[in-house]
Amino acid sequence: MLRAEENQFITRVGPDAPMGRFMRRYWVPAMLSSELPKPDCPPVRVVLLGERLIAFRDSQGRVGLLDHLCPHRGASLFFARSEECGLRCVYHGWQFDVEGRCVDMPSEPPESNFKSKVRATAYPCRERGGVIWTYMGPGEPPPLPDLEANQLPEGESLVIAIQRDCNWLQALEGDIDTAHIGFLHFGANRAEDEIEGTFRYYTLKDRAPRYAVLDTEYGAMYGAYRPAGPGQLYWRIAQFLFPFYTMTPTGLLGHQVIARAWVPMDDEHTLLFTMVRQRDPQSREARMRQGGGPPALLPNTTDWYGRFRMVANEGNDYLMDRGRQERGEEYSGIELVHTQDQAITESMGPIYDRTREHLGSSDAMVIRVRRRLIACARAFEQEATAPPGADRPEVYRQRSGGAILDENADWIAATSELRQAYVTHPELDPAIVGGFV
Amino acid sequence: MLRAEENQFITRVGPDAPMGRFMRRYWVPAMLSSELPKPDCPPVRVVLLGERLIAFRDSQGRVGLLDHLCPHRGASLFFARSEECGLRCVYHGWQFDVEGRCVDMPSEPPESNFKSKVRATAYPCRERGGVIWTYMGPGEPPPLPDLEANQLPEGESLVIAIQRDCNWLQALEGDIDTAHIGFLHFGANRAEDEIEGTFRYYTLKDRAPRYAVLDTEYGAMYGAYRPAGPGQLYWRIAQFLFPFYTMTPTGLLGHQVIARAWVPMDDEHTLLFTMVRQRDPQSREARMRQGGGPPALLPNTTDWYGRFRMVANEGNDYLMDRGRQERGEEYSGIELVHTQDQAITESMGPIYDRTREHLGSSDAMVIRVRRRLIACARAFEQEATAPPGADRPEVYRQRSGGAILDENADWIAATSELRQAYVTHPELDPAIVGGFV
Amino acid sequence: MLRAEENQFITRVGPDAPMGRFMRRYWVPAMLSSELPKPDCPPVRVVLLGERLIAFRDSQGRVGLLDHLCPHRGASLFFARSEECGLRCVYHGWQFDVEGRCVDMPSEPPESNFKSKVRATAYPCRERGGVIWTYMGPGEPPPLPDLEANQLPEGESLVIAIQRDCNWLQALEGDIDTAHIGFLHFGANRAEDEIEGTFRYYTLKDRAPRYAVLDTEYGAMYGAYRPAGPGQLYWRIAQFLFPFYTMTPTGLLGHQVIARAWVPMDDEHTLLFTMVRQRDPQSREARMRQGGGPPALLPNTTDWYGRFRMVANEGNDYLMDRGRQERGEEYSGIELVHTQDQAITESMGPIYDRTREHLGSSDAMVIRVRRRLIACARAFEQEATAPPGADRPEVYRQRSGGAILDENADWIAATSELRQAYVTHPELDPAIVGGFV
Repeated sequence: MLRAEENQFITRVGPDAPMGRFMRRYWVPAMLSSELPKPDCPPVRVVLLGERLIAFRDSQGRVGLLDHLCPHRGASLFFARSEECGLRCVYHGWQFDVEGRCVDMPSEPPESNFKSKVRATAYPCRERGGVIWTYMGPGEPPPLPDLEANQLPEGESLVIAIQRDCNWLQALEGDIDTAHIGFLHFGANRAEDEIEGTFRYYTLKDRAPRYAVLDTEYGAMYGAYRPAGPGQLYWRIAQFLFPFYTMTPTGLLGHQVIARAWVPMDDEHTLLFTMVRQRDPQSREARMRQGGGPPALLPNTTDWYGRFRMVANEGNDYLMDRGRQERGEEYSGIELVHTQDQAITESMGPIYDRTREHLGSSDAMVIRVRRRLIACARAFEQEATAPPGADRPEVYRQRSGGAILDENADWIAATSELRQAYVTHPELDPAIVGGFV
Repeated sequence: MLRAEENQFITRVGPDAPMGRFMRRYWVPAMLSSELPKPDCPPVRVVLLGERLIAFRDSQGRVGLLDHLCPHRGASLFFARSEECGLRCVYHGWQFDVEGRCVDMPSEPPESNFKSKVRATAYPCRERGGVIWTYMGPGEPPPLPDLEANQLPEGESLVIAIQRDCNWLQALEGDIDTAHIGFLHFGANRAEDEIEGTFRYYTLKDRAPRYAVLDTEYGAMYGAYRPAGPGQLYWRIAQFLFPFYTMTPTGLLGHQVIARAWVPMDDEHTLLFTMVRQRDPQSREARMRQGGGPPALLPNTTDWYGRFRMVANEGNDYLMDRGRQERGEEYSGIELVHTQDQAITESMGPIYDRTREHLGSSDAMVIRVRRRLIACARAFEQEATAPPGADRPEVYRQRSGGAILDENADWIAATSELRQAYVTHPELDPAIVGGFV
Repeated sequence: MLRAEENQFITRVGPDAPMGRFMRRYWVPAMLSSELPKPDCPPVRVVLLGERLIAFRDSQGRVGLLDHLCPHRGASLFFARSEECGLRCVYHGWQFDVEGRCVDMPSEPPESNFKSKVRATAYPCRERGGVIWTYMGPGEPPPLPDLEANQLPEGESLVIAIQRDCNWLQALEGDIDTAHIGFLHFGANRAEDEIEGTFRYYTLKDRAPRYAVLDTEYGAMYGAYRPAGPGQLYWRIAQFLFPFYTMTPTGLLGHQVIARAWVPMDDEHTLLFTMVRQRDPQSREARMRQGGGPPALLPNTTDWYGRFRMVANEGNDYLMDRGRQERGEEYSGIELVHTQDQAITESMGPIYDRTREHLGSSDAMVIRVRRRLIACARAFEQEATAPPGADRPEVYRQRSGGAILDENADWIAATSELRQAYVTHPELDPAIVGGFV
């Protein structure tokens, strides 16, 4: 439970909100590279941290992200012409480059030199792993975070963006809560139908895992454990990384490479980027059959909120089928793991009121992450304490996943190597996972 | 005319509004029994007094009405599973019974005993006469009010629910205003075309009735009178009953059994329940031909505001036909009495601003009811005076309708027997009504 | 740039806003005469200066404009019957004439004499040149302004109304900004393709005109000049007239007769009336081919905002075609001059925030007009100084357009005769314009 002021503090991300200022010290995934497919292609409307921006790719292929209102008299740069290495407003022909410099002002007499005095708000952009990153804070941007899932070879990498119509935090909280797996996603599945000895088997056998939680220099980590074979525990280890990343415990620790960015578009809309290593298309198909694939999206439109919208959405109750729910074909009656999460977190309302909740022992990580976020954003606000990890890309070299450990093992020490990014473990057998879990 | 503060006071019904707290001391019709057709059928979204609730019928057929957000972390119970005598949230499997008790919490280790500490907001429900009633106030609920129209034998009873998109009070006020009948509903009809000596004939002959109004222990009553045969007056006698019921003067006093509940969904939406005795289908058809039947409804959807919406609505100007208006086929150009009322009261805006009105002598009952409501809600708020009738079901044993009385008769004394509920008057001839009026 | 308070002050037009009170001292174009085609035709919903009104034409052909809520109990007069020289509310039959007098009150006993005490809010109306004018201020209305374009012989006159979904001021500002012509409208056209010596040729040759600006008794005037033939300048002379009129410099000064009224419906919607002399249909066709014709409109509906809406609108990006933009078929990719202006001014948002802009030398007239509006509305508010021109119809006898002057000429003196309305100049050759510019 949070107090009303805390809930306000932690959820709001606009330029004047403390959490918004805190987030602006980090690089932010803004869009997919494929949204700007070639030089001088059509500009794209982007909402990010409560700001309305226009993204474009200039004649040299560089990406720019400008305030959508021309600094002259406020015409939207959505209608602008991307040409000659700049975005040219069609109202008076003023042209801005990716850094926001006014590089042409043909409506003014040349002697005025007014051009040098005008600058568009522009956020620096970088491209990596199919994602366009931007830095919306003051000063020189730090290096990009060392997120392994964003640095994979092209054939192994999958990046998916999906819009969620609620506040970023309640969306993210669903991702650091391993207890809901056994209900929302697999509530209708039975251990007896699975191969004994797999993660999936243990998950379905004991649906009330215990939690160990700790702070880290990049955020927080939990291990959720339950009985496995004799003298063994099955550990699901997952990460929260500042300011809005998760690494989920699905899959095998040491093998799985994943990062999810819960990027606030504004206080009531989130763009989730899932970056994941996927080695072969067959496993993707299997994953889909088990409900772990991506949901169908509507075609993108040019609207501010027209990107990566799901076909199954609030307006159609996420295509819930009460018959399938009743017959136990799906616990929720909603198809696909992602859609199930989307339905539940959006159903809490645009910004969930955390003064009304009742947290149990399985919410340990949710509680920890909120405390970390509030404490660090407050320290930054009040004492200018550096935002954790913002300037230290190497702390993001983390992995998540499941492992079978001896019941007396120190889970932190025992998994320290498996949690290191950029390392291969050919000795591991992914078959132990036993399906999507 | 009301002062701005009075208008605010009398119209707002949320949990923090004085009128909302006042109303919560009464039983409230929430939905039709037919909306929950069988045990463990799909839950229904219900908006009531500004609260968002989920209604369900458990495995034993009992009705529950829970806050729509799960007390755990706020997932909507709309997606929940109705099974094993409880509603089970699909997020973590927590299950609540119709009384709001958490009866299962499978995501927590059994030793935590957290289950006993969590309770969902639940409002007790009763079913009677096709209506599901709920009590949203504190403490033990009082008995249900003795509303005859809600206690009829099944074959004689008709209950219709229709949503109105405006504040409950302006909707209700149209129902205690007999003067509009001769204009909005029958403005294009002429006395000459009716059978002399019937109510309908007198109504059309004199369209400016005089009003007698008085306070009652259950609310207020008026008699509106106009000339009938020599030495006689035609009286239309109607009731307001706390907190939001009307009994209309249509039909014959002593014969007609009706109650209408103007239930606030929230400040800007009302669900009108019309409970009425209708003895034979033929009279229903005749009523329809004269414009007194129910309007066509859109199919219900699962939306918060998707229940009992009219086909004719604000978006299509209530299917008004200017040609029919001009030619006098209907005074308003809108078909059906109900639709005419809907159009007029919604056209005042979501919450009508009563500081701007000009009330005449025919608004005597409107004025009286407002004063009663404000005075009683204030007395309850400030001095804890018991809300009239809330604990006295017997005061609701009332009837309304028309009667021909000697011009010197004391209308109150002369009609006291006819106004008693649960009494038959075989001596009365309904034909005197002369049609729907 | 304006301070936030100034921007608030200058843009808001409701009955309680200073600028709203200022504007209410002037006659206001409310609708087209053709919207009320005959006596007792259907009433029309009209939003004007933030008020919701019902327009009707009575049995004698007089136009009335009443508050949309009946003064009795607030039923909308949209549903009223226009009959017997008045609008009759269908709720209780109360009838009001064009002056707001209650001329019938059949629901009240005749002896009450309540009728004489009730008055509807009614604004006096006048019809001239196809436009229905109204006066929403206190006291006796002044004479109508002497706007030549509104007083043309019927065959020569064209009046077009188009709704714009943004604040009136940013819409108007686009019309006193001649510099944008060479970009937004003709940015893709080249001087080389035009006939040398025409206005069009000079406009395309030098796209950064210099500005001379001065206050006038009716508002403000500018001359924007650029090189023409040897020793000559091409001047574009245009007017702002209180409180919301423009006369654009398109065409030939002394020949062109035009007035545009940027009438605020409310703070976020504007109804633009273009009144213009057009002598032959052929020139209209030529104008259309050059992008100067009116855009396609959706059929009017009965909604508050259903009148004169464009087919090309924000929801469809104004039917922008990126291919046509890229290939230079249109600079903006949007067809028609009007639609281009609509797109740009609406793209600034409902009410543009002028604290963020950067004005150049070509914004001289925009700056001047704002200063005039703020100063005069403040003087009226604080010192009761008469609103300029409100009581002096003759100051509106102005014209606008282009002229070639000797480079040493005093442009004001040299054009004084050409700027007088109601004068013919047979010596002028309109061909010098060289097309729509």
